[in-house]
Amino acid sequence: MSTPGQSPLALAERVRAGDRSGVAQALNLVDDGRAARRAEALDLLDALEGEATGRRIGITGAPGAGKSTLLDALATRLCSLGRSVAILAIDPSSRKSGGALLGDRFRMGASARDSGVFFRSLAARDQLGGLSEVTGASLDVLAAAFDTVFVETVGVGQSEAGIVDLVETLVFVAQPAAGDLVQFMKAGILEWPDVFFVNKSDLSELAGRTASELRAGIELGRPDASGERPPVLCGSARDGIGIDALIEAIDGHHASLARSEAGPRRRAAGRLARIRTALAIRYGTRGLARLIAQASLERQVDAHPGRSVERIIDRLSARIEAGWAGTDAGAET
Amino acid sequence: MSTPGQSPLALAERVRAGDRSGVAQALNLVDDGRAARRAEALDLLDALEGEATGRRIGITGAPGAGKSTLLDALATRLCSLGRSVAILAIDPSSRKSGGALLGDRFRMGASARDSGVFFRSLAARDQLGGLSEVTGASLDVLAAAFDTVFVETVGVGQSEAGIVDLVETLVFVAQPAAGDLVQFMKAGILEWPDVFFVNKSDLSELAGRTASELRAGIELGRPDASGERPPVLCGSARDGIGIDALIEAIDGHHASLARSEAGPRRRAAGRLARIRTALAIRYGTRGLARLIAQASLERQVDAHPGRSVERIIDRLSARIEAGWAGTDAGAET
Repeated sequence: MSTPGQSPLALAERVRAGDRSGVAQALNLVDDGRAARRAEALDLLDALEGEATGRRIGITGAPGAGKSTLLDALATRLCSLGRSVAILAIDPSSRKSGGALLGDRFRMGASARDSGVFFRSLAARDQLGGLSEVTGASLDVLAAAFDTVFVETVGVGQSEAGIVDLVETLVFVAQPAAGDLVQFMKAGILEWPDVFFVNKSDLSELAGRTASELRAGIELGRPDASGERPPVLCGSARDGIGIDALIEAIDGHHASLARSEAGPRRRAAGRLARIRTALAIRYGTRGLARLIAQASLERQVDAHPGRSVERIIDRLSARIEAGWAGTDAGAET
Repeated sequence: MSTPGQSPLALAERVRAGDRSGVAQALNLVDDGRAARRAEALDLLDALEGEATGRRIGITGAPGAGKSTLLDALATRLCSLGRSVAILAIDPSSRKSGGALLGDRFRMGASARDSGVFFRSLAARDQLGGLSEVTGASLDVLAAAFDTVFVETVGVGQSEAGIVDLVETLVFVAQPAAGDLVQFMKAGILEWPDVFFVNKSDLSELAGRTASELRAGIELGRPDASGERPPVLCGSARDGIGIDALIEAIDGHHASLARSEAGPRRRAAGRLARIRTALAIRYGTRGLARLIAQASLERQVDAHPGRSVERIIDRLSARIEAGWAGTDAGAET
């Protein structure tokens, strides 16, 4: 709960200063479903716009690949290097129960907790199965407070693809022999990640083969890519093997984005994708098409410089709803 | 392509008779994106409504679990028992390339092909990552022509959950030690399947342990369920072990639905869910909310007895769009 009477600007100041209780309040505010809090949330996000400069790193992979253990090791190591670290874990909502099945207890290991890693789990998924709007807004808050923010999703379905729009670097965690190359390709998972990590290399001699297959698959699956290929590393999160190499690969990707100016382009594309997805969820493909018929979405987004993604979503939503105002939703069919 | 001049009613007759070329034409028609063909597609689906009595069985599981091999074995065996069988495989669309990465070649084994199993793969996914509307309509066509229709999806994400609304029986294929119990529960996969099959029991002694963990997890994950628990079987699709037991379990589920009258209830709930999802994709959560503000979706659906799901979707769509007709999509923000 945010303190009554605390202004969004004061809260933004506390977030920027890395004040943990302020960050927790800000996350509650952007996750608050009540309309009355929305204006405050937008003011907060606008105030953080341009200040959310922490690096955003996505961790994805099949259930059981060892993502949580890897995150624990990565976060602990980064803390020991002096970076401030936050983890946002997306829990798959149970369709029957509506909430997350398991709480934070299962998700963060002892060492990360002891190192002072900030942890938050989000049960929120939109009803169509994708990552919710709240995920993006939560990352905006966390990236204003911490040097490095990890976001972890479970699953390898299409709905996880949206994570690409939210991060600077995407790490895919595989387990040895989780399936042959064709299976990886079928699931479409070779197209997006910037770094691959074959975990549990201690448990199986298959790790090396899996890595080779991944490398071959990346060649096949990215016919349009430039010369640069994402690195495929092996290691064991449990035994701390390969963690430094993984951090180096992530830093290398960051440096290569900075060198090539692909970073700002990727950020802009990600913002646009978040806006497009949020509007599609609220108003559907046909509602979105009506908006785009007036001017390209890019142009409409460009008309709101310095505004947060959420503010722009609300502005464009108002524009769509204005088109509904005249009549009721139709007569008898 | 459907033959020019062929009426939807004549095509429906060919589908009901199990004429394979008629079935292929009908599938092309319901998958045809052009507005001009939509009226024909709806006439076809209306004509098949109530006749699509074939059993619909969903097969899901993580990439690499051996779903295709299992389907090959299942379909071949059912054919040898005198049933007519079709398989609809949902290919994960590549987000970059837009189409399915791999064609039918990889998906159906030699024995099913030799046995005369009808095979179709659909690349279609809606842009938000769920199963597309076309999946449901394709199953309506296939279930009017064949005794048994399998639908296979890849992935264990939330977007695959929609398959529950389309089938009578859902089979989950696991591989030994694909992850511990907590991981299965996190992915929310223990809530829905009617039958579990732990594949590759020949390759690993872990199969028995995985099955035990699944059984324990089902107890925990279905606190609201009645006394009946879904069976958890072990076997090896590659070596044909456990296939007859799996068929028996699927038949047993069918019989239990028939006994308990849960079958019609499940079918009705599935139809409603398909309509709700399709409208949410077209018009968003807010467009749908405007429609539901007039009367419950159930009541609006009940006003169209004997009509196909697709017809009802189009009728309700027209009602929503009537509410847009008055004004343009709004003024300057």
